[in-house]
Amino acid sequence: MAGQPSKGLSGRLKEPWRKSMEKIRRNERMSVMMKILSGAPGKLFTLSYFCELFGAAKSTVSEDIDGLRRVAKDFDLGEVETVTGAAGGVMYRPRREREAARAWVEELCGRLSGTERVLPGNFLYYSDILSTPEIVNRMGEIMATEFCGHQADFVLTMETKGIPVAFATANALGIPLVIARHSSKVYEGSAVNINYVSGSGNIETMSLSRRAVRENQRALIVDDFLKGGGTARGMVELMREFNVQVVGTAFVMATQAPQKKRISGEKSLMTLEVTGGEIPEAIVRPAAWLSSASL
Amino acid sequence: MAGQPSKGLSGRLKEPWRKSMEKIRRNERMSVMMKILSGAPGKLFTLSYFCELFGAAKSTVSEDIDGLRRVAKDFDLGEVETVTGAAGGVMYRPRREREAARAWVEELCGRLSGTERVLPGNFLYYSDILSTPEIVNRMGEIMATEFCGHQADFVLTMETKGIPVAFATANALGIPLVIARHSSKVYEGSAVNINYVSGSGNIETMSLSRRAVRENQRALIVDDFLKGGGTARGMVELMREFNVQVVGTAFVMATQAPQKKRISGEKSLMTLEVTGGEIPEAIVRPAAWLSSASL
Repeated sequence: MAGQPSKGLSGRLKEPWRKSMEKIRRNERMSVMMKILSGAPGKLFTLSYFCELFGAAKSTVSEDIDGLRRVAKDFDLGEVETVTGAAGGVMYRPRREREAARAWVEELCGRLSGTERVLPGNFLYYSDILSTPEIVNRMGEIMATEFCGHQADFVLTMETKGIPVAFATANALGIPLVIARHSSKVYEGSAVNINYVSGSGNIETMSLSRRAVRENQRALIVDDFLKGGGTARGMVELMREFNVQVVGTAFVMATQAPQKKRISGEKSLMTLEVTGGEIPEAIVRPAAWLSSASL
Repeated sequence: MAGQPSKGLSGRLKEPWRKSMEKIRRNERMSVMMKILSGAPGKLFTLSYFCELFGAAKSTVSEDIDGLRRVAKDFDLGEVETVTGAAGGVMYRPRREREAARAWVEELCGRLSGTERVLPGNFLYYSDILSTPEIVNRMGEIMATEFCGHQADFVLTMETKGIPVAFATANALGIPLVIARHSSKVYEGSAVNINYVSGSGNIETMSLSRRAVRENQRALIVDDFLKGGGTARGMVELMREFNVQVVGTAFVMATQAPQKKRISGEKSLMTLEVTGGEIPEAIVRPAAWLSSASL
């Protein structure tokens, strides 16, 4: 199918340049492998790739990988996974332990709570948070940790505010991002349009290029904000048009009211409540599931 | 100012957990440092941070850093920079050598050229490329390498398609991303709106929340597509309203025609020409500056 991205690029594009041909020590090999692996989460590298890069034997590279696996675990830096067999190799997966994730989200909640960020109409201003790479990357890693086992083929989001966090999640999972639009665009080719009821009760349109996804793929929905769930529901229906299965839904923030959303089974990082009164105050809390036992 | 993100998070949020208190070897320390540094480009870490993390002396950590600096250089994995003095420390910067960047862009051009991706109206379909993390991250690193010395405080883009690459560039530079919208939104607070002439000749609106940037900051504009330069010009004018200096403009793709754009001094990764005829063909080439001598 034209325009479908292949999952990786060819060897020539990936290969870092090795300038010196001197013998390379273990600490150097391990540092290089850590950079290459953690820079491309979810991507499988063969042992031969590293053997060639370093001019080292398989047994040597295997020992290096054992060392990396241990150290990644010890410092909560994610997982170095080895896949055995003919199609085997090694890959990196970001993995945030739930307890650490919760502590991080809790501190973020502290920054968002209070009166300063409440806008007229009792909206919360957090666009800055949603596009600060350091913060967004961590959110993406937490979401990726939760949905890592769900075998999603791509992350789906609806423009605009959720794009960075959806991208960060896709990056952490090593899969592409797909962006639904409010209307179809000439530069996206033929598209599927659906109508949905937005949070404000309006009928809106959601559009996705036919080239963007394939039948029978699996989608993980990631977005910035969940209120009634109208937009999320729209995304689920859009995926149905493409014969794509939704394997999970994740949000940065969910409002406490209404409690009944138009979707279910979602995971949000934080919940939002804005108190009434003359000076409205935002109360932002870590979502309940973050307090439950780790995976 | 309310809603302004501080540049980093507090120590508690950053700190990886060290589970084992056994003595840590050089190869382990170096691997951990490589992961932490390269995972937060442009962010300064003090030596003390690593000394505490490892329970190691400053001289030991300094030697580790020397090793990392060498190995990053040898394998074209970016730069490990030490900053001396009281406010000193160590940071990582992605840095793609121009020759390697050109080879990579050239292969990408090969994938985009041809007849398959040309849509009715002679538009090129490349939305898939613009949201595949592995590709977008590399683009962001190439752009960051070019504009690293320009001291931008944030990356500015206009919704929607350029957001992932703008985010990746912001990530590589360690600065926030700011997203201009087509209209002001209730959840972004008071906004500055300007009108501009889009590529299709229509008068359109561009809107940015007042909270998003501060006076006298420096902006790097990053977007996916440059044709006449109307939108880019709009972003420059928007920044003028905020008293913000534009220190650079970068695009993924620029059309060959019209040759005269409404902005100047921009850097694009690729140029696009679509030949007429019954079966139109896209000819995508690496931009000329990629062939000139390295920085």
